[in-house]
Amino acid sequence: MANGANVYAVIMAGGAGTRFWPASRTGRPKQLLPLAGNADEPLLAATVRRIAPLVPPERVYVATGQHLLAATAACLPAVPAAQLLAEPVPRNTAPCIGWAVREIQKRDPEALIAVLPSDHFIKDEAGFVAILARALSAAEGGAIATVGIGPTRPETGYGYIELGAETSPGTFAVKRFVEKPNLERAAEYVAGGRHLWNAGMFFFRASAMTNAIAEHMPELDRGLARIDADPAALGEIFPTLPSISIDHGVMEKAENVAVVRGDFGWNDVGGWQSAWELAAKDANGNALPAGAIAIDARGNLVCDLGGTKRVIALVGVSDLVVVDTGDALLVIPRERAQDVRAIVAALKAAGKKDLF
Amino acid sequence: MANGANVYAVIMAGGAGTRFWPASRTGRPKQLLPLAGNADEPLLAATVRRIAPLVPPERVYVATGQHLLAATAACLPAVPAAQLLAEPVPRNTAPCIGWAVREIQKRDPEALIAVLPSDHFIKDEAGFVAILARALSAAEGGAIATVGIGPTRPETGYGYIELGAETSPGTFAVKRFVEKPNLERAAEYVAGGRHLWNAGMFFFRASAMTNAIAEHMPELDRGLARIDADPAALGEIFPTLPSISIDHGVMEKAENVAVVRGDFGWNDVGGWQSAWELAAKDANGNALPAGAIAIDARGNLVCDLGGTKRVIALVGVSDLVVVDTGDALLVIPRERAQDVRAIVAALKAAGKKDLF
Repeated sequence: MANGANVYAVIMAGGAGTRFWPASRTGRPKQLLPLAGNADEPLLAATVRRIAPLVPPERVYVATGQHLLAATAACLPAVPAAQLLAEPVPRNTAPCIGWAVREIQKRDPEALIAVLPSDHFIKDEAGFVAILARALSAAEGGAIATVGIGPTRPETGYGYIELGAETSPGTFAVKRFVEKPNLERAAEYVAGGRHLWNAGMFFFRASAMTNAIAEHMPELDRGLARIDADPAALGEIFPTLPSISIDHGVMEKAENVAVVRGDFGWNDVGGWQSAWELAAKDANGNALPAGAIAIDARGNLVCDLGGTKRVIALVGVSDLVVVDTGDALLVIPRERAQDVRAIVAALKAAGKKDLF
Repeated sequence: MANGANVYAVIMAGGAGTRFWPASRTGRPKQLLPLAGNADEPLLAATVRRIAPLVPPERVYVATGQHLLAATAACLPAVPAAQLLAEPVPRNTAPCIGWAVREIQKRDPEALIAVLPSDHFIKDEAGFVAILARALSAAEGGAIATVGIGPTRPETGYGYIELGAETSPGTFAVKRFVEKPNLERAAEYVAGGRHLWNAGMFFFRASAMTNAIAEHMPELDRGLARIDADPAALGEIFPTLPSISIDHGVMEKAENVAVVRGDFGWNDVGGWQSAWELAAKDANGNALPAGAIAIDARGNLVCDLGGTKRVIALVGVSDLVVVDTGDALLVIPRERAQDVRAIVAALKAAGKKDLF
């Protein structure tokens, strides 16, 4: 980055997410919750703070849903309100990124853009910033770059990126993007050392992305051009855009794709199990709010998000997740925490709109 | 009972109780809670309703603590306020019963009195009333009678009554009162068929009890006589009375003691395990409030006593007790439910007066 002043960020903050029920709701998704060990900092706020050495808030754009606009603004007081982009409806990542890129391009035709998820945890923040700088350098050289995470386990829940030739230290050509593998395949990937986790981070010149969309997603390109010409028609046009991910729509097709390897303690905060891993814990492995009582209790995560300041007492229980939000209470074993989605499904089926 | 109109009851409702924390508190003990499967009826209210065929509320006296007087009155609107006897301090059962007996004796020198605990569950209420009538008959004949429960398991938490000769069908002389036995001894008692559980129920003519106290507890007798002579001095004299149980002070020493065998589905509601046993349960053995969600959950008891009407969701957990009171939340395995006393001890040590 010869000139840091033309670096912008697009934070993808439209996620719905049901895996943190009852803390997460339609109107209070994961990125607005403090799930990474710091009870005062929602994941989205941490995302914006973390990149500030490279991208100050005045050059941060946030893509979110219309129903989340007020909560997102409250979470990010330093980001100018005009830079909060409210999608009328979710249409996956390609329309969202394409729209944001065009908005930034109007302001700065030379913009260099980092697209980042809003709801991940990163342990080594300085290391992360260094990797961002490397990925932006690749983007400055004309590539559409991504960051791949060195896999630490045979995870079947993520997509993988197969490495090609190393074009500069730590930066590689992309051989191909791989869909979520089965366990056997994932283990091969980890052992082979040629596959990285796709963490949903993208870096490019604004012009490189608009050109790639024009080439690989012409229908999307035409729709975005119509919004450019008539911003008031956003609510009418956006829902008609093709609902497709940037991975499928652009990354898998573009030729100038690079990947920068990152090893900075990444965690996608995928559920209550991750929240427990990231939380401060006592000598018995319990992550508890102040004033909680734990007797013969081990490995439990207790979240009191209802502001009730009630005393929570656990006796003789292990490896549970207990979440209290004032209007809902969840008790579930940590190892089954992904099954909260079944509760959300039950609440939706019962039409209890205030509870999901 | 030649004349039912001289039958009175003394309900012992001064219990403190820590085994139902967080539902039970110093100012809201077990007898004021609906713990026997009917969410609208506290145990004390059930006790008074149950005996009404023999003793209508206008002849019911309730011994309780001064700090419980208002809550007790609210629980028993049909019992005249003057018949709620507030002990200035708890001094065990002998002073309390002795005082109540003298109060009733002033109103009716021929009174026949049933002393009953306020916090038990009885399944067969008609059968219970029949046994009360039998015990009152024995009392009318001059005995100090008690009801013994046919033991259904080798319980080590209760005292036992060893049977003497059967003096009339179902009524026996008492050979002796036995302190809580060890498991081996308790098993012998159950197998032998000569021991019944002491359920803390006593039946006597008022004069028989005042005479027995005068004979076996002269110090108590003198103290009670002073209160009789100067009721305004209750608060000064009552704390000086000997703190001793009616079992030790009178029953174990008196000679004219009888026991009536009762088998009416008795449960002392000794803790959350009992509450689960008595509660209505779904096909998976879960006792849940309306609107709760249980997925792959078995044998759980969930009590929502906080009036929050929150949704409570259990996934993949078994045999837990979850109690929510608005200001406190407890999670404990059913089989460890007696250990809530450790929580109360911790709260007392921490000086959290509003929580115990």
